[in-house]
Amino acid sequence: MKSANRFEFLHRVTYSDCTVGNHVYYSRYFEIVEAARGEFFRCRGFSLQDLQGRDLILPVIEAKALYHAPARYDDALVVYLSISELSLLRIHFLYEIALVSGLTIMKGETRHVCTSILERPKRMPKELNVALTPYVAGPSGR
Amino acid sequence: MKSANRFEFLHRVTYSDCTVGNHVYYSRYFEIVEAARGEFFRCRGFSLQDLQGRDLILPVIEAKALYHAPARYDDALVVYLSISELSLLRIHFLYEIALVSGLTIMKGETRHVCTSILERPKRMPKELNVALTPYVAGPSGR
Amino acid sequence: MKSANRFEFLHRVTYSDCTVGNHVYYSRYFEIVEAARGEFFRCRGFSLQDLQGRDLILPVIEAKALYHAPARYDDALVVYLSISELSLLRIHFLYEIALVSGLTIMKGETRHVCTSILERPKRMPKELNVALTPYVAGPSGR
Amino acid sequence: MKSANRFEFLHRVTYSDCTVGNHVYYSRYFEIVEAARGEFFRCRGFSLQDLQGRDLILPVIEAKALYHAPARYDDALVVYLSISELSLLRIHFLYEIALVSGLTIMKGETRHVCTSILERPKRMPKELNVALTPYVAGPSGR
Repeated sequence: MKSANRFEFLHRVTYSDCTVGNHVYYSRYFEIVEAARGEFFRCRGFSLQDLQGRDLILPVIEAKALYHAPARYDDALVVYLSISELSLLRIHFLYEIALVSGLTIMKGETRHVCTSILERPKRMPKELNVALTPYVAGPSGR
Repeated sequence: MKSANRFEFLHRVTYSDCTVGNHVYYSRYFEIVEAARGEFFRCRGFSLQDLQGRDLILPVIEAKALYHAPARYDDALVVYLSISELSLLRIHFLYEIALVSGLTIMKGETRHVCTSILERPKRMPKELNVALTPYVAGPSGR
Repeated sequence: MKSANRFEFLHRVTYSDCTVGNHVYYSRYFEIVEAARGEFFRCRGFSLQDLQGRDLILPVIEAKALYHAPARYDDALVVYLSISELSLLRIHFLYEIALVSGLTIMKGETRHVCTSILERPKRMPKELNVALTPYVAGPSGR
Repeated sequence: MKSANRFEFLHRVTYSDCTVGNHVYYSRYFEIVEAARGEFFRCRGFSLQDLQGRDLILPVIEAKALYHAPARYDDALVVYLSISELSLLRIHFLYEIALVSGLTIMKGETRHVCTSILERPKRMPKELNVALTPYVAGPSGR
């Protein structure tokens, strides 16, 4: 059985990411995965900016993070992004953030719905759904 | 049966809290609840700063948020904080953020363990445990 | 000669404000003075939200900070706000952030112009100008 | 007369960078130039992390920004970094942030001193000074 694709995004930890004790502040990982998400959509051919121009946005309705180990200033992080649920009306992302050396730093999930800019439910275009499908990994066992 | 206490913390939404579309950015709520958590400990007589001076810190191992409605610039928010699990080695916080008018904006949870500054498991002082106990609400039904 | 009024705003330093080395991250002071600015306008009877409803915004065109001493986690800060220049088309704010004990942490300035939401120059209402005038301190000698 | 080198750093604007009205929040540019600064030092062969291991840090004592035009979500920004003053005890950076298309978004400056971790004045290593010298552009005319 072929495993799903995972999108990879690199992030170098800055001082603005960190807090007392020299580790990344806990909510900052959500900013990092947002940057990864944006690049992922662009790479699939549908930037979030373009989708908004077509009156489609993807508001987050749920976010979760499990912190495995602290990331430090100057660490090079890899964000692995995949999709655990996909329909025309919703999309759930899974993230794993690791050091380049392989150590897992954080695992997380964000759940999004598809709406118009006025936040009414709205189906995503079929071609977007098709473009995302190779990254559907099924629900995580976490 | 007496219901548990809830700690209340006020926050006025700033421009720095908000993003495109005039709503609070999704990870920013975790900064708001961190501020609430700090005030809660201070009000219970044990500031996190003092605890750190006693070689006790409370690193977060898990964080979760469910977004019910967007908060906007200038909204006055109330953070309601309670505890869903408490032992000498761990503490789980529940949060509800609402408009002053009552509308629920976000519900969330953060799970913390008790460690030394070098991040080895360490029991919290009994008197801290006693001071927190009135806020234990039991696990949420969410 | 009567000295100008100064508006005071309190801020408790959080972990999200801090970075490696346990001090407030250098750009974070601009978020703190933005919160102070918002409260100042509200206290003068014209919230920035209300002004926006009247098609007036105050985009920042210049910002400056001089860092005198580091603020640390849990420090109680006072932001002193005054106005160094005021016309119907522009407003310059001066800030001094100090510990409650008196130690100066940071001095700063932000310069704003008055525009419509579409960012065309627009005069502020005369009654707003009148409400702000008691806080005009003249240009700083810095 | 040969002009000085400028270091270039790319940044894609995220939702976390933006605020109400779909433009980058004014203090966020200081986070972007901090990331650029970190990459600059790494590229010159002396990461800030390494320097800290040699008991040298570069605390900022002054920061300034002039905002020329708003950057929007999804804009690709180029940060141009050069040095306006360099001695063994201090370093002043100049920044220009522009759209890839060339439009100037922001110009800024940060001034840093060289200190030990305990924040006592300390000279930078001569070889670091030599590595930075090609980027000295002289004071700006602003």
